[in-house]
Amino acid sequence: LLASYGRLADATAAAAAHFADAPPADRALAVTLAYRRWGLDHPNELNLVFTDQLPGYAAPADGPTVDAQVEIFRPLTEAGAELTAAGAGDDSDPVRAGLWAAFHGFVMLEANHLLVWLDDPAAAYEAAVRRALGAAGFPDPAPDVRRRFDRWHARRGAPA
Amino acid sequence: LLASYGRLADATAAAAAHFADAPPADRALAVTLAYRRWGLDHPNELNLVFTDQLPGYAAPADGPTVDAQVEIFRPLTEAGAELTAAGAGDDSDPVRAGLWAAFHGFVMLEANHLLVWLDDPAAAYEAAVRRALGAAGFPDPAPDVRRRFDRWHARRGAPA
Repeated sequence: LLASYGRLADATAAAAAHFADAPPADRALAVTLAYRRWGLDHPNELNLVFTDQLPGYAAPADGPTVDAQVEIFRPLTEAGAELTAAGAGDDSDPVRAGLWAAFHGFVMLEANHLLVWLDDPAAAYEAAVRRALGAAGFPDPAPDVRRRFDRWHARRGAPA
Repeated sequence: LLASYGRLADATAAAAAHFADAPPADRALAVTLAYRRWGLDHPNELNLVFTDQLPGYAAPADGPTVDAQVEIFRPLTEAGAELTAAGAGDDSDPVRAGLWAAFHGFVMLEANHLLVWLDDPAAAYEAAVRRALGAAGFPDPAPDVRRRFDRWHARRGAPA
């Protein structure tokens, strides 16, 4: 479980590093694209990480699982903090939860074959993330972020 | 699996029926509140219904599982059709997927104890659904929909 968390955190951190010099809104979108890419490439790990496999088990509030969660979202938290420091958007806890839910929900549905009726799930995901960012008051990421992400991801191959 | 789908569909249909005379935006919010309530009350069924338990299994596009999904969302689809017929909002497939993802993702995270850091998850959920509806161009539901839903839900007790 912790190893899977770590691999997802590596994926989001690598995307954030590649977009380190990009505006924070572009970086935030790139991180959510990495989250989707990892989820679609590792659907069983995705389900393992984000659903309770042990009925009644809840991660302790300060335990290692929660630390691992923090790592996954560090790049997003940092981008959000940069944007709100510049006066754009709302990174309060409820809004952050809603943003996470928006892209997490899409990845869960798509990875579990529940969005097979969409013609172009990648475009629908990007549009959904952009709407969610916009609804939270964040600036719209550049139009070519997905193209740049896909090119970078294809170049680096499929890491384990 | 089909029985769990059916119980969730019953829950969303009952909420839609109670809000049958309300404006479609209010009814749509009430249906998402019923979806959350059912998910929090039946977390194991929620995970069973919405994650692939059989690695590599995908529901056939015209099979009974997909019919059951359609039932769950019939009240939302109808509310969306009413609103778009009146000139408000976008109920194209990609936007519908994004809306579903937004509230589904929140319920999945909350039911799996991943939002324990929120002070008031019910309020955060309501706000997230309102932002998602607004970002899709739909009118804002009335301010008291959640209060009316909660009162109705408390009155009818906890059905099996």
